[in-house]
Amino acid sequence: MSLIVQKFGGTSVGTVERIQAVARKVAGFRDQGHDIVVAVSAMSGETNRLIALANEMQERPDPRELDVLVSTGEQVTIALLSMALKNLGYDARSYTGGQVRIVTDSAHTKARIKEIDDQNIRADLKAGRVVVVAGFQGVDESNNITTLGRGGSDTTGVALAAALGADECQIYTDVDGVYTTDPRVVPAATRLEQITFEEMLEMASLGSKVLQIRAVEFAGKYKVPLRVLSTFEEGPGTLITLDEESSEMEQPVVSGIAFNRDEAKVSVLGVPDAPGVAAKILSAVGDANIEIDVIVQNISSDHKTNDLTFTVNRTELAKAKTIVEKIAAELNAKSVETDDKITKVSVVGVGMRSHAGVASKMFKTLAAENINIQMISTSEIKISVIIDERYLELAVRSLHTAFDLDNTAEA
Amino acid sequence: MSLIVQKFGGTSVGTVERIQAVARKVAGFRDQGHDIVVAVSAMSGETNRLIALANEMQERPDPRELDVLVSTGEQVTIALLSMALKNLGYDARSYTGGQVRIVTDSAHTKARIKEIDDQNIRADLKAGRVVVVAGFQGVDESNNITTLGRGGSDTTGVALAAALGADECQIYTDVDGVYTTDPRVVPAATRLEQITFEEMLEMASLGSKVLQIRAVEFAGKYKVPLRVLSTFEEGPGTLITLDEESSEMEQPVVSGIAFNRDEAKVSVLGVPDAPGVAAKILSAVGDANIEIDVIVQNISSDHKTNDLTFTVNRTELAKAKTIVEKIAAELNAKSVETDDKITKVSVVGVGMRSHAGVASKMFKTLAAENINIQMISTSEIKISVIIDERYLELAVRSLHTAFDLDNTAEA
Repeated sequence: MSLIVQKFGGTSVGTVERIQAVARKVAGFRDQGHDIVVAVSAMSGETNRLIALANEMQERPDPRELDVLVSTGEQVTIALLSMALKNLGYDARSYTGGQVRIVTDSAHTKARIKEIDDQNIRADLKAGRVVVVAGFQGVDESNNITTLGRGGSDTTGVALAAALGADECQIYTDVDGVYTTDPRVVPAATRLEQITFEEMLEMASLGSKVLQIRAVEFAGKYKVPLRVLSTFEEGPGTLITLDEESSEMEQPVVSGIAFNRDEAKVSVLGVPDAPGVAAKILSAVGDANIEIDVIVQNISSDHKTNDLTFTVNRTELAKAKTIVEKIAAELNAKSVETDDKITKVSVVGVGMRSHAGVASKMFKTLAAENINIQMISTSEIKISVIIDERYLELAVRSLHTAFDLDNTAEA
Repeated sequence: MSLIVQKFGGTSVGTVERIQAVARKVAGFRDQGHDIVVAVSAMSGETNRLIALANEMQERPDPRELDVLVSTGEQVTIALLSMALKNLGYDARSYTGGQVRIVTDSAHTKARIKEIDDQNIRADLKAGRVVVVAGFQGVDESNNITTLGRGGSDTTGVALAAALGADECQIYTDVDGVYTTDPRVVPAATRLEQITFEEMLEMASLGSKVLQIRAVEFAGKYKVPLRVLSTFEEGPGTLITLDEESSEMEQPVVSGIAFNRDEAKVSVLGVPDAPGVAAKILSAVGDANIEIDVIVQNISSDHKTNDLTFTVNRTELAKAKTIVEKIAAELNAKSVETDDKITKVSVVGVGMRSHAGVASKMFKTLAAENINIQMISTSEIKISVIIDERYLELAVRSLHTAFDLDNTAEA
């Protein structure tokens, strides 16, 4: 008998029938003797409907009042799910974020959880009840309603699991787990039985949008075992675990191939080779609230100037270019070049820490396909390359095969 | 400069445009320098939509969860109205029942207010804010969300006015005040400038459904000046006041003619003239949760038996008849007769306390129209008669004229 926190997103609770299906799923776990805490999102479409109402009232809706408004979405779901559970004969009780009390800071529409009072929930579990908690919301110290921002229900689930010391936090979604890469690009992609938090972070931030990054960070920090699985299909999903040394032996070198189509490249060519130059360029971009991803700097062939290249989100390219061109002129740089026809492909795996040769295998594989590498960036558990976006599918497929990730069972 | 509590019902806040109109109305009062607390209902239709969802989940939705669900309706309105006010440049802040804190008992779906914490509201008023409170809802001692039952937003408005010692509680509705009788029956009906709480109670319980009875009782108890007025038209409405001796001189003898079409009559004829017989019949009906309105008993012509007659709501007549027939048989009564083609017409006015002749004028007026009176029931400030429902309009019109209530300005 374990304590399990289960999180169901908007699609999973999108209709009366789906809420009833979620109730049956929860009931099945109760029948196995588990204690269950459920965190739910608003029914799909509801949050957008409420935001549309707010936009009719104010061009920029007041953040405090927006949270009061939008938080009703999850409140509707917790009541309906509790009723559905009671209708199946299971005792259940709903809690808003404020009723739990999930205390956050006062940053309306993007609050962060500070503390969770677990007293009421523990008492209900002891009394044999399923506890149904509104995801995505809390209250600040003064009892103002706050929301955690889009996707915040994942964070609520993980935070509840951490506070309660749950045995597992299950995130139900519309995919049946984390895959070695996007199955739409590589049909032979395999579901991973297990992945480490670090790998998951690399995969998530690189475009595998299964889980909210914040929730994964939170789970890693508080060592909450996290499982991603499907609401609509049976199956064990993917378990996201701590990177214990003991299990490393069995881990594959590479866990997955991630990619991101949203990148664009800015290059400043021929900037003086002097201290503080890169900082000057990059901090100007950062000050404009533009997030920078990959950064590469190389001494140029004349050994007197540098070439600095970095990537930003495509939607911010024009803004970044304007800023950089101004600074480049001040610095007497040779030129500024941009390219939004690029893509980032990454090989991710904690196993590569103890295995040499991952990088060379990656570069050889791409070379064999005649794919030119424009930039390289590495961390302990991933190697990313920037390539021409035309070669994205080819690159991902050939790397997936090269690192033995293809699902041979299905091939 | 006064402190005014304003209550707007579901129709008044039924659309985005109407909420914006309410915001402009509130802003107008702010411009006059008044401190304003607004209590609002859910947008019209919203509560029914939510209840329909609940009924899909459970045949008899769990009352606690139903309150969690339904209370989201007002929460949406407070956020939208606060945004609309801010959009007009007025500072505003919304409060759910729980945030105020409006503490109620734990009788879900029909809770009663026990206590209101006015600290936050007072601080906001002092800071120049309009305070927007969700009507109809509160929390019990354990922070469970409760609702006050249908129409409970009126009660919230009055309770807030009482707790804050407001100078006036304004109930905005879709009529522009309390009338001497239903204008659909008597086109010459006049809006009353003023009416006492007691008269209003008699008028309300007799079918003038302008205000919730509970709210009027509450206002009377805590001496909150109550004003009924229209959301959609300008005008002073009707002020509901304490029955101060000093003002009695100016009061008309009769304030209005009320009526109720929903009554049905049960007569038990020839019951033994013995102690406890009436109690036995009436308590059996009461035990079945059937509300009894008028009761009349007369000794019959043989001076050995009594005739007992009472009225119930038409929807409960069949149930009442079954119960009474059983007891009548036990008591050896002669017969049980029922009639659902009756109506109750009442003349209401605190003035009649000090004026003889109201009853005789009423009976003479009805006699002149050849209307037979089946039952008579009197209180200090009203006289009710039960008549054949065919004569309802004729009775109300002739009484309205006889007691000088016709609007001569418009005639």
